[in-house]
Parts: sequence; C-alpha cells; structure tokens
Amino acid sequence: MRYGYFGPEGTFTQAALLSWRPAQGAEHVPFATVDAALRAVQSGDVDSAMVPIENSIEGGVPATIDALNALQLVIVGEVLVPITFVLVAPSGTTLADIRTIGTHSHAWAQVRGWAAANTPGATYVPALSTAAGPQALEAALAAGEPAPYDAAVCAPVAAGGLEVLAEDIGDNKSAVTRFVLVARPGWLPTPTGFDKTTLVLYQHSDRAGGLLELLEQFATRGINLTRLESRPTGAAMGSYCFSIDLEGHLRDERVADALLGLRRTAADVRFLGSYPRADLRAATVEPAATDAAFADAREWLRSLG
Amino acid sequence: MRYGYFGPEGTFTQAALLSWRPAQGAEHVPFATVDAALRAVQSGDVDSAMVPIENSIEGGVPATIDALNALQLVIVGEVLVPITFVLVAPSGTTLADIRTIGTHSHAWAQVRGWAAANTPGATYVPALSTAAGPQALEAALAAGEPAPYDAAVCAPVAAGGLEVLAEDIGDNKSAVTRFVLVARPGWLPTPTGFDKTTLVLYQHSDRAGGLLELLEQFATRGINLTRLESRPTGAAMGSYCFSIDLEGHLRDERVADALLGLRRTAADVRFLGSYPRADLRAATVEPAATDAAFADAREWLRSLG
Amino acid sequence: MRYGYFGPEGTFTQAALLSWRPAQGAEHVPFATVDAALRAVQSGDVDSAMVPIENSIEGGVPATIDALNALQLVIVGEVLVPITFVLVAPSGTTLADIRTIGTHSHAWAQVRGWAAANTPGATYVPALSTAAGPQALEAALAAGEPAPYDAAVCAPVAAGGLEVLAEDIGDNKSAVTRFVLVARPGWLPTPTGFDKTTLVLYQHSDRAGGLLELLEQFATRGINLTRLESRPTGAAMGSYCFSIDLEGHLRDERVADALLGLRRTAADVRFLGSYPRADLRAATVEPAATDAAFADAREWLRSLG
Amino acid sequence: MRYGYFGPEGTFTQAALLSWRPAQGAEHVPFATVDAALRAVQSGDVDSAMVPIENSIEGGVPATIDALNALQLVIVGEVLVPITFVLVAPSGTTLADIRTIGTHSHAWAQVRGWAAANTPGATYVPALSTAAGPQALEAALAAGEPAPYDAAVCAPVAAGGLEVLAEDIGDNKSAVTRFVLVARPGWLPTPTGFDKTTLVLYQHSDRAGGLLELLEQFATRGINLTRLESRPTGAAMGSYCFSIDLEGHLRDERVADALLGLRRTAADVRFLGSYPRADLRAATVEPAATDAAFADAREWLRSLG
Repeated sequence: MRYGYFGPEGTFTQAALLSWRPAQGAEHVPFATVDAALRAVQSGDVDSAMVPIENSIEGGVPATIDALNALQLVIVGEVLVPITFVLVAPSGTTLADIRTIGTHSHAWAQVRGWAAANTPGATYVPALSTAAGPQALEAALAAGEPAPYDAAVCAPVAAGGLEVLAEDIGDNKSAVTRFVLVARPGWLPTPTGFDKTTLVLYQHSDRAGGLLELLEQFATRGINLTRLESRPTGAAMGSYCFSIDLEGHLRDERVADALLGLRRTAADVRFLGSYPRADLRAATVEPAATDAAFADAREWLRSLG
Repeated sequence: MRYGYFGPEGTFTQAALLSWRPAQGAEHVPFATVDAALRAVQSGDVDSAMVPIENSIEGGVPATIDALNALQLVIVGEVLVPITFVLVAPSGTTLADIRTIGTHSHAWAQVRGWAAANTPGATYVPALSTAAGPQALEAALAAGEPAPYDAAVCAPVAAGGLEVLAEDIGDNKSAVTRFVLVARPGWLPTPTGFDKTTLVLYQHSDRAGGLLELLEQFATRGINLTRLESRPTGAAMGSYCFSIDLEGHLRDERVADALLGLRRTAADVRFLGSYPRADLRAATVEPAATDAAFADAREWLRSLG
Repeated sequence: MRYGYFGPEGTFTQAALLSWRPAQGAEHVPFATVDAALRAVQSGDVDSAMVPIENSIEGGVPATIDALNALQLVIVGEVLVPITFVLVAPSGTTLADIRTIGTHSHAWAQVRGWAAANTPGATYVPALSTAAGPQALEAALAAGEPAPYDAAVCAPVAAGGLEVLAEDIGDNKSAVTRFVLVARPGWLPTPTGFDKTTLVLYQHSDRAGGLLELLEQFATRGINLTRLESRPTGAAMGSYCFSIDLEGHLRDERVADALLGLRRTAADVRFLGSYPRADLRAATVEPAATDAAFADAREWLRSLG
Repeated sequence: MRYGYFGPEGTFTQAALLSWRPAQGAEHVPFATVDAALRAVQSGDVDSAMVPIENSIEGGVPATIDALNALQLVIVGEVLVPITFVLVAPSGTTLADIRTIGTHSHAWAQVRGWAAANTPGATYVPALSTAAGPQALEAALAAGEPAPYDAAVCAPVAAGGLEVLAEDIGDNKSAVTRFVLVARPGWLPTPTGFDKTTLVLYQHSDRAGGLLELLEQFATRGINLTRLESRPTGAAMGSYCFSIDLEGHLRDERVADALLGLRRTAADVRFLGSYPRADLRAATVEPAATDAAFADAREWLRSLG
C-alpha cells in the first residue's frame, strides 16, 4: 500500500498520516500540493492520500473540497490533529531582527495576532506549506544565498536545524485541523456506529428555498449535519453547491433513505464516502430513525396489500 | 354480492348506490343508520356498504369517519351526488299553513335560509334521514294519526304520494355530497392514475408542531391532500387524530414512501383504502415524485456499494 | 345584561351558563337552536350567548363554528362541563319495555354502546336538544297523547318528573363538553396569562402546502394550537377553511406577530376572540417568543439605523 | 474622502475601486493585505476600503468575511469585475523556459489548467497578490538579483515592463470577482429597490435543525438568499456561523421583519450592511411580502382592538 500526503515532510498532514495506524510501515509519498496528491490517487499512483479538509479557525480547505468532487474520489477515514506553531529562524536571530516571516497562508492567519504583538512591523511572505518555510530558509543558508525571509512559522517537528524563537504561538490554543484519507470509489469502510458521510448537493435553483428543501431531507429523518459549506459551481457568480458532512453511514437506513430523497429532489447528489469519525462519537438516533423503525415500517407497508 | 346503504329507500345514499355501476342488478339492503350499515359490512352480512362521508356545505359526516376507523374497514370507491331538496306536504297544504318541518339535520342546515324566507316561523323537527321525513308523514296520514310535522324536506325521488310545494330549495345550488363504498380490509382496487387514499393519523403529542411534521411527510413527496379533518380521539378534550384524503394510490411509490415515513414518525397510521376518484381527475405528479424517479434513486443507491 | 343560551332549561348549555360567575343574577334567555341564540347576539336582543363548541367524544359543533364565522361574532369566555347522561322514562317503565329512545344526536352518539348492551333493539328518535327529549315525553303524558318515544337520554337535571332508569350511561365516563360565551366584536377580555385565541384561516389554494405554510406561522413563533378543524367554505367540494384555537391572547406579542404574518400570507384571516382558558393553564412560552424578546428585537432593529 | 484598497497598484481590487464612480478623484491608499485595509477603516485612517469578497470560481475570501465580522464594519457598496489573467515574463522568455510561476493562490487556482497544458512541469510559487508577482520579478531584474520565479500571472494592467507571453489564460473565461466597499457602522445607503443585505448568523446549537430554522425566517417572508457561507466560530471544530447575503434592504419591511425574527431565535445576528447590487437587478417581491402588505397587516391588527 502506498499512501500519498500533502508534504513535504514536517507538515501537519504528514503528522496526520503518521498517526493513521493502518499506514504504519507502509510507503508514504509526499506531494507538493493537495491537488497533486489527489490526482495521484485518481491515477492509481498511490492507493490513498491524506489531505487537510478543514481547520477549526480558518475553515474549509477549498482545494481539497473541490478536488474531491472534481476527481470523484471518496473519503475513507479522518484524523484530527491539534495545531501548534513555532517561530523558527537562523541561530542568533532575535525577535527584534525579524522583518519578514514565511509560512503557509492558513498558518499565517492563525498566528497573526501573536506576530502583531511580538514582531510588529514584520510582513508576511507566503510559502507553499508550513514545512516549506523552514526548508527554504535552511536551503538558502546552506547555499549561502540570501534568505527568502527572516523567520518561518511551522510545526515543531519541522524546525529542522533552525532555532526555535517562540513556541505555541497560535492565537487560538485549541486549534485543530481535520485531515481525510482519500481513495478511489468502491472502497467503503464497514459501519462502526460512529460514522460520517460526506456529500455534495446541487440545487435545482439557487434560491433560499432550494437549500431549505434539501436540509429538510435530513431533518425529517433526524440526521444531524456536522459541516455545511457552500462552494461555487463555477457556472456563474451566485451559483453554489453544498459540501456536507452528516452523522451516519451509507449502510444506515436513515442515511440511505435521505440519499434516495435527495437523489429525487436535488439537481445532483455526489456521494463522497462513509467513514468512521475520528472522535469515535456515536450518532444520537431518535426512535423514528433507527434501522428497526425502517424495517418495521416496510413490514407494515407490505401487510397493507 | 350484497350492498348495504344508509336508507331507507329514497335517501341520497340510495341514489349514490344506484349510480354505482358494479352494483346494478345486485341486492341492495337499507340500514337505518350509518353505523348499522358499516357494522353489517364488518360482520359479513353485506359485502360492502354505501354511506355519506362529506357534504360540500355541511362538511364531514362524523359517524362515517369515526366508524370507518373504529371498525377497521376500507374505502373501495366514491360517488358524488348533486344535492337538490324539495319541500313536500299532504295535498292541499300551503306554505302559509306550515308550522313544523321534519328532515335530517344535515338537510335542514342546507335549506334554513329558504325556510326563513318562505315559511317564516316554521320550526324544525329532526328526522333520522331525509327519506324518513316524508315516510313518517305519509304513514301518519294513512293511519289517520296526527302528523309529526306539517311538511318535510327530502330528495325529489322521496316525495312519494305527497305534494311538492317547492323545488330546488337548497340555499346553495351547487351542493354536492360525497359517498363512499366501504368494504372489509384486503380489497384493494387496482390503480387507475386518478386515485385517492384515505388515512387516519395520530400524533405523538397534540401540539401544532406535531401536525406540521406529519404534513411535511406529504409535502416533501409532492403529495396533495384533498381533505383534512380532525376528530377527537376520545382520550381527553384537545386530543385529536386527523382523517386525511390524499391524491394517489398505495401502489404509487410516492404514497408508499410517505406511508413508510408516517409509520415511523406518527404515533399511529391507519390505512383506510385507495380507490378511484369519482371526478376521474389525475394527480399532478412532479418529476421528483414519479415512480420512475423512485426507481432511478434506488438503482443509484445500489450503485454506491 | 341579558344572556342567551341553547336551551330549553335542563340542557348542558344551561348548566354551563349557570356556572359562569358573571352571569349570576342576570337574565337568562333560552333559544331552541344554536343559530337562533347567536342571531340574537348579533341583533342585540341579548348581550352574549352560551353555546356548545365541541365535545371530547363527538368533536366540533358545526352549527356553532359556522355561525360564529358567518355572523362575525367573537368568543369572550369558555366553560368546560363534564357530561353525564341518565335514561329517563315514565314511572313503571322497565328497560325491557323500551323500543324507542329520544335524545339529541350528539347525546345518542355518546350512549350508543350502553344502549346496545342494555336496551338491545331499541331505536333512536332524534330530538332538538337533550332537554327537549324528556320535556316532549312529559308533555305527551300530561296531555294523554301517545308518547313520541318510550324513554329519553338527558342530563340528570333535566329528568323532571320522569323516573331515572339508569345513571351515568355515557360510553366514555370522562366526556366533557366545551361551551363558549359569544358576544359582538369590540369586547376583548383582558389578558390573564392563560388565554386562548380563536381564528378562521382561508388558504389561497386548497393544497397541502397551503395549510403547512399557515401552520408554520405559528410554529416559527412557538405558538401551540389546541384545536384545528376544517370546515367547508361552501364554494365547492374540497374547498375548506380552518377553525383554529391557539394558546395566547391578541395582546401577546407572539400572537399579534403571527396574526400579521397570517394576514399577509393567508387568503383571509378572521379573528374570533381572545379569552381566558377554562382550565386556567398558562401557555408555555419559549424564550424567543416572550414579550420581552419581541421588545428587545425591536429596540435592536432601531439601533441599526 | 480617503479610499483604502487591497493593493498594490495593478490588483483587480484597484480596478474595482477605479470603477467605483464616487471614488473618482479621491485619494486611493493601497494596503498589502485585506486585513490591513479593513483595520485602516476601523481606525479611521481611511473612510472606506475596497476588498474582494468572493470569486465565481474560487469562492469566498475568508479574510474579508472574517474581518468584516470581527471588526464590526459594514458593506456600503459592491462592484463586479470580470477576471482576465495574462502570463508575463522578462523579455525573451519562451513558454518552454518556464520552470516556476509566481502569483496569488486564488489566481493560480484559476489558471492551473492552462498551466498544466502550456507550461507542463512548471511549479507554483505563492505571492501576496496578483500585482505583487510581476513587481517582484521586475524589481529583481532591475536590481540584477536572481528572479523569485521565471514568470508571473496577473491582471493585464499589472504587466508593467514585462512581456505578455499569453493572454486570457483563465480556465473559466467567465470568471468574475465581487468586491465590496466597507465602512464603519452608521453609514446606511439609501434603498434603491435593487439592494442586498449582508448578515452573520449564529445558531443556538450546531445541529442541522438550527440552520433550517434560521432559513425559514427568510423563506416565510419570501426573501431570497444570494450567498450562504459557513465560517468556523473558532470555538471548536464543527462550530460554525453563517455569512449570508439576501435580496432587500434594512428599510424593506420584509427584511426588517426577518431581522426581528432572527434576533429572537438565533444565538446572535450581526448586521453587516445594506447596499445597492452591482448588477442593478431588482428583487422579486411576492405580494405577501411587499411593504404595502406589511402596512395593511398592521392596520388590520390595530382594527382588532
């Protein structure tokens, strides 16, 4: 089994993959962008790939959400990783010396408050990933070239040979990023009782009523949503589809029934996988939405003739 | 085949039965009350019975609605009969002579305006049916006994030997009564494309939200209701169930699906029959609610694994 | 003050009026029908009238519901009366002698089970009211004329000089009838915190969605309905309006707000009064629907500019 | 009047500001980030600022959406700008020479397809804005320093002295970005009949039903939403608020009424401005939601006493 991930080494995504037990001992292949990692899944170059899908502070990762949908892949697992940032720089640098800071834009958004207070005046230089920041800095040092920035923000593990000037500099100490393991369709994890299902829904029209109708398909079956994100369809300004996570598995009767209802009433429904929740929290299923309630109803209907 | 009906001869119900083609040439058995007619169906004394279920002016007939539910019978057909009333009296009577008028309370409610204008001061005397009014009058005349009232209101066909003092005296000229043919469960008419289904729904609680939730089961499947009537459950003041007619047949996918949803979410659902509409009006089925849409959704779900 | 009621003396309606404290010592005027009592209110002949509106077993009283609406009157109070029936007959009659029983159709519906078991074979003869049954019987006895029926079913208080053959013969021992005191518009009882409001709603179309939309006006404001009854508009078979009782008073913000919403979205709304509940049960008002929540929202809106 | 914008010169945001008629002749002040521009509005350093809020392909701009909310600013206008990208490089460069391409991540996402086909193997280097890419390239050339990348993607106007190697390279030719002019609260543009209002809604709980209830506040008043985006509240993974654009102005009765309803039922509502739509499209207002319908309802309610 070959596992791809959004790299290079030292990213939070690699940390997510390292914590994924089934991947232990298997081959791990870094890709420079989320898109590249997911295309490698699609082409069969890797069997699956770990990519970030949302951060508790910064929100969804559009590249992942859009590519999942465009490439018709499915999620087969998820991992939650607490996010802790450090500020690293060549040895001898002091906070007062820092004029430029390189990191990934998502990371910068999470340390901006700290930076404003502790390195006032320092400007942000974007990098492709959190791990790419310190790597470029070290590479420039090693080559004797001018550094692309004075310091970098990254995961503790990615500090490499640089000096850690400050630890735990995130503005929100409880920040968490959610990563998903993505595979080709046909891989459906066994239901566990604490599952999630990811869908993309397209409305027939872009009116408020349209989304309301789709949400009612979940509400009438007692299904909780854990994430709802709109994404442009690209057709025109104001044309959106909805990326949704819900509690339950394709094999749960209430989820299957909601999918039937959505298939009939939505302009399109894409099934992007059912998989165990990282937090192992079981869904609360009301009596009318249990598998037994669905089975009883079918039997009763049959008895009517 | 023996057909019961709410009699005696000369009632609008008999007219309904006479217009029911399959009953032509069969035995017709009158019963003095709706309840008696329906109990005869339950006991097997007759194969089916014709009874009134609602009038376009006076509304539902509680005796029918409640007995259908209590006796667990099903509707297998319906008939619409335009209602026209005449005022009849012993020969020689003039409008000015009339002090009392006998008829069924439903009929009285429909001619009250005419009576106030044309027989002012005349008081109402209740009778068991519209046909029972003139019959009692004629019987008293024949026996030389004092008449129970000076005149009667009935269907033109029930005038018997009495004189018709006034024709078409209904306050609303377009009044119609709907009759249903009732049988024991197990008799399910073939779908025609212009069918109705009758249900009784019990909520888990008597709150507004409860009914709303039940109605959403129809709305989300594009099912129109043609009648909704609340009836007391008898448990306590303010405890109601709902008698409902909807467009469609048990064999229509959207109706079967709504029944499944109701069975799961309502406190109880009683199926009281699917049968062709008397007005032969086909249901308007939106694209998302056709049998084909349901079949397509099932096939798609199966393809997901 | 003159109070009308659906009489004659001895009806349950009179009992309701006698229990209405403000009517003590005032003039009480019986009317032979509900309609006559309500017309007397409209004409100013009486100041208000007590009439039955629903029974916990038999359901709504169409004559009352329709006349309230047609005559544009309002409800200003309600009374609950437990219903207990007795069987009365001329002295010396035994149960075995009884071939015919006279009473009001609503009463007959409530003792039918008892009668089937205890006076099998006895047939029903309709009377205008429960009190009219024994009165007609006594009158015939006194006049030496043939009795209209062998026995009568009535309230214990209406037995008069007849013998009570059986007590408490109702099939449902907890039967209750609800009576309302009706007046001309303009009379609005002060809010008490345990009020009800009665409305009649007309939909723009007779489709299921129409009622759903109207009910949402209550649900979105946390208003509970305590009664919902459909009544034909008379326009055509299948055309209904809805008679509704809800928890709350016209002066409660949430009720006023719902009325505004209904006025805009329904084809028509008729306000038929706000009045204290007979059971003194205060409405449960969720935090978002209190008067304070409405006042806070208005102040906030004003602050936006 | 001083107008800030997300700069430097040559960005699409500057183009948006240049097309904003009231800003003609006024002072325009570039800021390196959206956040800096909006903080300058808050501090009073500028009177208003133009920033991007969403792109028809890439979706919402989280920095703008979050800062608007966090800094409690309001939108007072919007501008739509068609997005056209060019590829620029030092004179003499051919497509085959290009190994690295610098631009803003939003721009890269929109030309990735073109790049894969026309500069296969070229890797992406992030820049702070589309205009910053060619500027850094020209600055390096001028200083005789190594270029940060071989080519840049930018707006045609930002090409500067570089050679345009390819025009109109966006993967979606109809891409549009929407920009908003942001000011301090208290500035409320006059209603025009073709307005939008922006809100942020917080649910009481993060369940599907919660969003459904909020959306019903719009649906029951016939208000269309033109954008709905979830954003993390930062409290925990899975805790979201909703950024919403709707058709209508704070001064429209239906919008004010929806705000009242939301204020009562949502955990929090933030008003982020009412402003004319860039496309001048008037809202379709159903009869029940016009200002006249609201006025009529109020008058009727008053007449009830």
